[in-house]
Amino acid sequence: MWIVPEKEIAGLMTPEAAFDAVESVFAAMARGDAYNFPVVREAIGHKDALYGFKGGFDASGLSLGLKAGGYWPHNHEQGLINHQSTVFLFDPDTGRVSAAVGGNLLTALRTAAASAVSIKYLAPEGASVLGMIGAGHQAAFQMRTALRFGSFDRVIGWNIHPEMLSRLADVASEMGVPFEAVELDQLGQQADVIISITSSFDPILMDAHVSGPTHIAAMGTDTKGKQELDPALVARAALFTDEIAQSLSIGEFQHAAAQKAISEEDVTALGKVINGDHPGRGDAEVTIFDGTGVGLQDLAVAAAVVELAKQQGKAIEVEI
Amino acid sequence: MWIVPEKEIAGLMTPEAAFDAVESVFAAMARGDAYNFPVVREAIGHKDALYGFKGGFDASGLSLGLKAGGYWPHNHEQGLINHQSTVFLFDPDTGRVSAAVGGNLLTALRTAAASAVSIKYLAPEGASVLGMIGAGHQAAFQMRTALRFGSFDRVIGWNIHPEMLSRLADVASEMGVPFEAVELDQLGQQADVIISITSSFDPILMDAHVSGPTHIAAMGTDTKGKQELDPALVARAALFTDEIAQSLSIGEFQHAAAQKAISEEDVTALGKVINGDHPGRGDAEVTIFDGTGVGLQDLAVAAAVVELAKQQGKAIEVEI
Repeated sequence: MWIVPEKEIAGLMTPEAAFDAVESVFAAMARGDAYNFPVVREAIGHKDALYGFKGGFDASGLSLGLKAGGYWPHNHEQGLINHQSTVFLFDPDTGRVSAAVGGNLLTALRTAAASAVSIKYLAPEGASVLGMIGAGHQAAFQMRTALRFGSFDRVIGWNIHPEMLSRLADVASEMGVPFEAVELDQLGQQADVIISITSSFDPILMDAHVSGPTHIAAMGTDTKGKQELDPALVARAALFTDEIAQSLSIGEFQHAAAQKAISEEDVTALGKVINGDHPGRGDAEVTIFDGTGVGLQDLAVAAAVVELAKQQGKAIEVEI
Repeated sequence: MWIVPEKEIAGLMTPEAAFDAVESVFAAMARGDAYNFPVVREAIGHKDALYGFKGGFDASGLSLGLKAGGYWPHNHEQGLINHQSTVFLFDPDTGRVSAAVGGNLLTALRTAAASAVSIKYLAPEGASVLGMIGAGHQAAFQMRTALRFGSFDRVIGWNIHPEMLSRLADVASEMGVPFEAVELDQLGQQADVIISITSSFDPILMDAHVSGPTHIAAMGTDTKGKQELDPALVARAALFTDEIAQSLSIGEFQHAAAQKAISEEDVTALGKVINGDHPGRGDAEVTIFDGTGVGLQDLAVAAAVVELAKQQGKAIEVEI
């Protein structure tokens, strides 16, 4: 089996490779060539940790395996990051394990790639203003990736703790675009594309905030109860996601679904747009991509990084 | 992380260490200190393979992780065994992966250890005749382990293809006990302990076959539809298992449960007997242990073999 350590990922994986891997696997999912397994997620009753497995199989990309790990909220007290994960790939022809890959940076890369893919296919034509909601580590990642793949000439941002927006200002400066902290109504009026990535349990962006052609990538909600968007905003938008069932149960669309304001038929797999089987934005004013995060994304970026690591002599081969 | 390759397991793991590990984890499960996660098992639509994950957490033994792998029925055509699995252990304090261990031999060892533990706690006093149903690779394993931990002076066996019983005769000769091929009624009359380990989908051992104090370890049924025992035999026996819900859904007890001949209250976790919280055999004539196989068994034997491998310098350390 091949080992690709966490510390090698930053030097190996490019945002472009992550983008391509995620775009391909979304397309494979929509064609029915790839599917995710039921997610296991357990509060293990030790160190307040959440632990579990996200697995899947892509018959076109021939990737099989899982991401295992979770959230250890006290890790930072000992200098470790709280989200810890490892991706294991298996040979679909034999069932033998083929690789173990550090999954921490890959998770951030694949999540950022998912919103960037949604922007490519769903942003209004000529989108030039990017709006950010949230200012954590993941928000910086998302913003950097969106700037890399989009053609934004300005970024505006809002965060519940405005002082944290300096992190986004730093990224903007590094990427050579102006940044401005704004209120939510300004953000909703001015931004052509909005990325929300918070750990909120209440709606932040309200229907009345948003006007004009807008694409929203809602990336923060991955658990029952979390919420970033007003259900009325969801109800009037054209809806896209990575995995429909997951978006309605633990993703952003859970709330509008619970209010019966939307149903499964209102949500389209982003892969359908990638495959040319759905027009995408059409004449919708607002589009929303609910990025819930699926195991196949992890497998796709891990498989890509294993290939890069082998080519560059950075993969360690061990017998198992 | 530590790697313990498949080829090292035979030289490292002893039946005694497997027995102790499985006995401890059954006890921990019955105390509520250890639990198994929902099992993921998928027919992936490629190479006729079944693939999945069995995970769990033992808060007393501090083992966390999963066995991943499955059944690739065409593997033998390329000289590989059909059941392929790998065990991954995680540090429960941080969520970081701590070991990857070849899981093929371990699976056989932990399954054999489970029936041996059941024999220790449930066999009739003075049990001296062991009866084997099935003559595959696993049956030889089970028989060797039972002879090692029990005090049997004779083995009798039955198999649907009698010519295959030579495998059991070889093990008996190696272990220095006489072996005889018999019909099922003789087996049920003469054996004090019966181990059934087949891949049957119909009952083999009927109620009328069995007389006198007998303990049966039913080890073959791990899927809906599989069956080794007459439900009437199950209905009149004292029932024990590794995991009650699993025994009633995919284990041997599924059939008597489907006929409403038994219910959840009739089945006792073997760990309760180990912990002294249940008398075990009592005055029952027939006891049955339904060994369905749980992830915690895999974690327990893998954790034990990692310790042995470290002590003996056979574990490979790699950074991840």
